[in-house]
Amino acid sequence: MGEFDLIRRYFQRPATTGVDVGVGDDCAVLVPTPGARWLVSSDMLVEGRHFLSTVDPARLGHKALAVNLSDLAACGATPRGFTLALALPRVDEAWLAGFSRGLLALADAHGCPLVGGDTTQGPLNLCITVFGEAPAGQALLRSGARVGDEIWVSGTLGDARLALEVFRGTVALPGDGFEAVRAAMECPTPRVSLGQALRGVATAALDISDGLLGDLGHILAASHVGARLDVDALPRSAVLAAQPAALQRTCVLAGGDDYELVFTAPPGARLPSSSVPLTRIGVIEAEPGLRVVDGRGDAVEHGLRSFDHFAS
Amino acid sequence: MGEFDLIRRYFQRPATTGVDVGVGDDCAVLVPTPGARWLVSSDMLVEGRHFLSTVDPARLGHKALAVNLSDLAACGATPRGFTLALALPRVDEAWLAGFSRGLLALADAHGCPLVGGDTTQGPLNLCITVFGEAPAGQALLRSGARVGDEIWVSGTLGDARLALEVFRGTVALPGDGFEAVRAAMECPTPRVSLGQALRGVATAALDISDGLLGDLGHILAASHVGARLDVDALPRSAVLAAQPAALQRTCVLAGGDDYELVFTAPPGARLPSSSVPLTRIGVIEAEPGLRVVDGRGDAVEHGLRSFDHFAS
Repeated sequence: MGEFDLIRRYFQRPATTGVDVGVGDDCAVLVPTPGARWLVSSDMLVEGRHFLSTVDPARLGHKALAVNLSDLAACGATPRGFTLALALPRVDEAWLAGFSRGLLALADAHGCPLVGGDTTQGPLNLCITVFGEAPAGQALLRSGARVGDEIWVSGTLGDARLALEVFRGTVALPGDGFEAVRAAMECPTPRVSLGQALRGVATAALDISDGLLGDLGHILAASHVGARLDVDALPRSAVLAAQPAALQRTCVLAGGDDYELVFTAPPGARLPSSSVPLTRIGVIEAEPGLRVVDGRGDAVEHGLRSFDHFAS
Repeated sequence: MGEFDLIRRYFQRPATTGVDVGVGDDCAVLVPTPGARWLVSSDMLVEGRHFLSTVDPARLGHKALAVNLSDLAACGATPRGFTLALALPRVDEAWLAGFSRGLLALADAHGCPLVGGDTTQGPLNLCITVFGEAPAGQALLRSGARVGDEIWVSGTLGDARLALEVFRGTVALPGDGFEAVRAAMECPTPRVSLGQALRGVATAALDISDGLLGDLGHILAASHVGARLDVDALPRSAVLAAQPAALQRTCVLAGGDDYELVFTAPPGARLPSSSVPLTRIGVIEAEPGLRVVDGRGDAVEHGLRSFDHFAS
């Protein structure tokens, strides 16, 4: 099967509303909503770094788009479409069928059509660029946190890291527990509707991809503030909560791959009624730096840092 | 140097007009021009496939953006910005400095700012997604060619392929000639202003990346027409014109990496006065298929086909 057959069979879909031209020309042509800003984000996933070679291709397709939709969610954007650039070592039709099924199912669920991209031969690499819209001045940024704001997080943290530790062989879990945390790692849910509902409510937001400590640090740096974070308040699943305390802290503070939203809002702000639980985990303070405390307010020494692709 | 320092040092630039938020948040935020359509294209470049490991990094930076701008040019779009996702085996500051210099020089020349992206560790891979605008209904597509239209091409064809043959060792060239065709391969010029000038003039257009035969075939397929192409009329450089006739034909018909525009226009259409030469190379016909003829109108047997990344 050649490159163009591959695109037609697995990735070409009928045009949808708001898309004048989709897959198949030099460019896709999209119809912006009058008055809206155009939001863009791009993520690249590399085998062995962002996913294991053994992962179910449908889950990989889901995750490749989910991590990009999560960036739109963090900015409160409405998804409009995405491009996929794909380097494949060879054409594996079973893999492509699974990958495109997982990818396009999530795309359909969010009304976010695949509008273009590229395919080439090379070491397995997935690069998705996603486009969305938000009303002018309403995109959620990292820079808006103010002293006294409360810090909130969606869902639970740390399951993806716990699953990674099982794959690494440092932790053993019973089958049910493993499948639950494995799904968190391989099939994250982007908080797209929550992000949109936080427009005009949250003062700052981002999605947790490299671990809460580092990602919250980006909000603090961009907003020129500090924070106090209650590690005991950090929401965690029953599976993670059954693990030793030190492992729990590593997973919730520096786990990575969570794709939950962390956001700040003034005390008493009217938070949206969300289908995903929201938990208050700390407060923004004037003093620079991030102070991690336990439920009694005592400082916690954690020695953890965020994930960095090039840190030695 | 960590991931975020790398981004700050080599890729973060001051915000520019039309960009509310650039590099450094979860998404970039761009301001669309009222009434315009939004055009998007994405290309992935893999070491050993799209470029040699020995290429000058500044030229690689230029080319990575040039091939994307060429897609915007093919649609007649005005560039607005781009994202860069980059997988690097390791942090090589000399390489990064050269790469970003070449990349951002071309970006500045086209008023097309880098607004976001991703960096990760992995086999060298460059994925750029570019955004542009065109008035509603004026984007140049592949599907508009009509019987009787003339077929035109910009610049000259085949030099990039000739350079590749030198690298492959099948052709020897004197130093001056080699440097000229090597620059065509490594530093293509995207025909952005020509593309915009062809709005309302050309009936169909695309950029030649995989070789004229195959790429023109895309216009014929999308427009449901055929064509007659005069191989002797195809424009070529003095260096290529000094090569054996069979090699010339391979290079101009199926060379690839040309990044010139091929477009169709009715006879007598008022073509823009362009700084790049335009050459009439054939005519659109009702009979399906592509008939290659020589200057006397005799059929040419070429046995060539377009480049396909997955053809065996």
